[in-house]
Amino acid sequence: MALFHVRMDVAFPRDLDPKVRDETLAKEKAHSQELQRSGKWPEIWRIVGQYSNISIFAVESADELHEILWNLPLFQYMKIEIMPLTKHGSDIKLGGSAARTR
Amino acid sequence: MALFHVRMDVAFPRDLDPKVRDETLAKEKAHSQELQRSGKWPEIWRIVGQYSNISIFAVESADELHEILWNLPLFQYMKIEIMPLTKHGSDIKLGGSAARTR
Amino acid sequence: MALFHVRMDVAFPRDLDPKVRDETLAKEKAHSQELQRSGKWPEIWRIVGQYSNISIFAVESADELHEILWNLPLFQYMKIEIMPLTKHGSDIKLGGSAARTR
Amino acid sequence: MALFHVRMDVAFPRDLDPKVRDETLAKEKAHSQELQRSGKWPEIWRIVGQYSNISIFAVESADELHEILWNLPLFQYMKIEIMPLTKHGSDIKLGGSAARTR
Amino acid sequence: MALFHVRMDVAFPRDLDPKVRDETLAKEKAHSQELQRSGKWPEIWRIVGQYSNISIFAVESADELHEILWNLPLFQYMKIEIMPLTKHGSDIKLGGSAARTR
Amino acid sequence: MALFHVRMDVAFPRDLDPKVRDETLAKEKAHSQELQRSGKWPEIWRIVGQYSNISIFAVESADELHEILWNLPLFQYMKIEIMPLTKHGSDIKLGGSAARTR
Amino acid sequence: MALFHVRMDVAFPRDLDPKVRDETLAKEKAHSQELQRSGKWPEIWRIVGQYSNISIFAVESADELHEILWNLPLFQYMKIEIMPLTKHGSDIKLGGSAARTR
Amino acid sequence: MALFHVRMDVAFPRDLDPKVRDETLAKEKAHSQELQRSGKWPEIWRIVGQYSNISIFAVESADELHEILWNLPLFQYMKIEIMPLTKHGSDIKLGGSAARTR
Amino acid sequence: MALFHVRMDVAFPRDLDPKVRDETLAKEKAHSQELQRSGKWPEIWRIVGQYSNISIFAVESADELHEILWNLPLFQYMKIEIMPLTKHGSDIKLGGSAARTR
Amino acid sequence: MALFHVRMDVAFPRDLDPKVRDETLAKEKAHSQELQRSGKWPEIWRIVGQYSNISIFAVESADELHEILWNLPLFQYMKIEIMPLTKHGSDIKLGGSAARTR
Repeated sequence: MALFHVRMDVAFPRDLDPKVRDETLAKEKAHSQELQRSGKWPEIWRIVGQYSNISIFAVESADELHEILWNLPLFQYMKIEIMPLTKHGSDIKLGGSAARTR
Repeated sequence: MALFHVRMDVAFPRDLDPKVRDETLAKEKAHSQELQRSGKWPEIWRIVGQYSNISIFAVESADELHEILWNLPLFQYMKIEIMPLTKHGSDIKLGGSAARTR
Repeated sequence: MALFHVRMDVAFPRDLDPKVRDETLAKEKAHSQELQRSGKWPEIWRIVGQYSNISIFAVESADELHEILWNLPLFQYMKIEIMPLTKHGSDIKLGGSAARTR
Repeated sequence: MALFHVRMDVAFPRDLDPKVRDETLAKEKAHSQELQRSGKWPEIWRIVGQYSNISIFAVESADELHEILWNLPLFQYMKIEIMPLTKHGSDIKLGGSAARTR
Repeated sequence: MALFHVRMDVAFPRDLDPKVRDETLAKEKAHSQELQRSGKWPEIWRIVGQYSNISIFAVESADELHEILWNLPLFQYMKIEIMPLTKHGSDIKLGGSAARTR
Repeated sequence: MALFHVRMDVAFPRDLDPKVRDETLAKEKAHSQELQRSGKWPEIWRIVGQYSNISIFAVESADELHEILWNLPLFQYMKIEIMPLTKHGSDIKLGGSAARTR
Repeated sequence: MALFHVRMDVAFPRDLDPKVRDETLAKEKAHSQELQRSGKWPEIWRIVGQYSNISIFAVESADELHEILWNLPLFQYMKIEIMPLTKHGSDIKLGGSAARTR
Repeated sequence: MALFHVRMDVAFPRDLDPKVRDETLAKEKAHSQELQRSGKWPEIWRIVGQYSNISIFAVESADELHEILWNLPLFQYMKIEIMPLTKHGSDIKLGGSAARTR
Repeated sequence: MALFHVRMDVAFPRDLDPKVRDETLAKEKAHSQELQRSGKWPEIWRIVGQYSNISIFAVESADELHEILWNLPLFQYMKIEIMPLTKHGSDIKLGGSAARTR
Repeated sequence: MALFHVRMDVAFPRDLDPKVRDETLAKEKAHSQELQRSGKWPEIWRIVGQYSNISIFAVESADELHEILWNLPLFQYMKIEIMPLTKHGSDIKLGGSAARTR
């Protein structure tokens, strides 16, 4: 399993047909919630004061992440930044084996 | 409760006494794990290839977050970036009430 | 109570209907003044030479700040930057308890 | 009277004698509080998670601001950013005369 | 008196009616020259190769500077940067009193 | 398998013992070549005029990449940037299945 | 032979005729694959989550690279960044002659 | 005659012998005032809150400007930015000939 | 004589009439070649992969450079960056007099 | 032949032995002039007010450029930026064949 930190900033063009915008948003919400239920998109937060979210993805591979993002209904209206994550040596959820201090 | 996204980048001065460094790291780990157990520091991940972490803090207030960060043993060796988070309208963990689409 | 430092930069699209612009500005002013009277928006200054303001918000939580900003009539025409604030150890308004020097 | 928004970021050199640092901090605190009491430095806040403050200065002129900042005990250890402020047309503290909407 | 260093970068939208552009430029020139004659705008230079100027303003206060800039005919077509200036200790025009070397 | 694009910029501290530097470089070279032979580090190029390389890693997971980078003898002397890669729809090495044009 | 690292970021104007876009993409794919088969464009990868690629070009000269890029069907819709590459002293594919450690 | 806008930011190394620093500052002041008296350095202002100045140089050529700056006693302790200036079409000091509006 | 290093980045608006664009390019080429023949624009190179050039201008003064650039047919479609140049102490074309090593 | 635009910014560490610095500068000058005489380094200019040069290299390949730069006596004290150049369609020195207008 591969863990990714993703920031998405949404910017609709000012002249987008409001009906298209609303339909895209409804599709995005349904799509996102399906991925959340599947366990592939475990966390999504809104950044305060921004039309942006911070999300955690837990996927098979970077290839799968790319397929997911590329097919989001909002994809063409978003700027996306990605950072691969790994376990931290101080994380208590990792039990006794994470002996490394650094 | 207030949710914060925090990135910490660690940079030890090259000439720091290795003993001081190791003691600081051990204290930081113990301190971090105590805060994790208290529920105030629910998530900590390592950014791949970086001496950096992404953390989520769930605290009473920004004042409490400041007290926590300011007193971290590693505080003087870190660059810290903070973003307040709030719930996202598409988050399935928020149940039926989050009717807002945008 | 949570204190936030907010900078807002206004940028109207050149082709916005002047009537829409003026109505939005009138609504924004009324909305802002209501929030000022409620004590949630205690300070607002204009940055000299810029179509921008620096504001201080005193709210229950970051969640409340997000609701306020997200619903400002000017929201879609503004770039917004947020920094959580906390009390400073040298602030004379905080009385004798702030013993910390650093 | 002239209003200025000032951000100060403190960075002590790692090898500064702790005694010099503590004396400088004590002098800075006393100096700052004297200026606060005189009304010239009406607001000072700590930025959460940063060794930085946001301050409002209310002085006779930019010349006076320069004299104040240049003579702060911490001056040589700080990066300082300045923005002149003016009254905002929506500020309720300005009474009825601020008729301008924009 | 307060001294300000102002840089203005002009950017007309490509589709602006040439007549509107030319009228705005004529008004700006007249307005600027009136302010120059009043002594409030003592210096204006063109930056070589740029549609930009560097100006010095000598005004009563930052409030007055804001009023002047905000009402320039070109205001909505310019990006403006402001730095407050003060006298330099080595300036020979300041006579004998500026004893400070630093 | 996961593919990563990695840029490494080397910066030795000026006062590093030349013997330590040379030993570290020899260890790095041996370590790098072992990883190249294992197939995990298939490409390494020098950027012209820079003490920097562009590398491609082909690993099991981002976790494995982190272990590899974190344990490089040069790790503490390098700034590292990482981008996950995936197959491109126009790559002829991928055969007939990559029907997607975009 | 000269080796170049090229990053291309694609940005179609929102109002481009979809037919023009699709024809351009089809031409680009055919053109790219012809160059790949000729050996001049040996590597092309998609950056995860971005409408961007990282490519390696192996050409006669920078002049030839310029001719290739300038004539890509997508040229006018792309931002392009170029870095000349050279062999790395640790590359095992270079055999025994690369004695240099640094 | 050639007109240049120059910004100089001074940064003394923390460990510079105070005697060397003071002697350098005294030499710089004398040198600057001599150039001011010669008419080659007609304006020098302090930027408020910064150890920086904005200067105007009126010299024979860029070659002469280089000789002047390169030989300033403070040269090695300064970051210098240069912009060539020319006359502005709205400058009232240029008389009737500057007919150009743009 | 004054020497300037100039970088010009061309960006035509997407909706510019192709006839206008082609006529502008033809005029620019003729104008540039006339200036090259006069000796005022001795060097012009294309930056590989960019719609940009690096040019050297050898003119009477910065004023003349400004007149030249401001009147280029492509002026309104270009971003221009300028750096004044002077002779380098190691340049063999300068003969024996350039004794300065630094 | 390959043409490269190179910018070099020199920064000596403050505590470098002046004798080492002067010897390095003398070696650099001799080395540079030898390369200039060979035709590989046809142009070198000083940027006004900066300890920096702009150079043109005319070499067999990027590999040769790397060897040249990597072995400059000043290499470890410089930041280097490289851009490959190619002929410009408007260059009069290229004769009649450069028919391309764009």
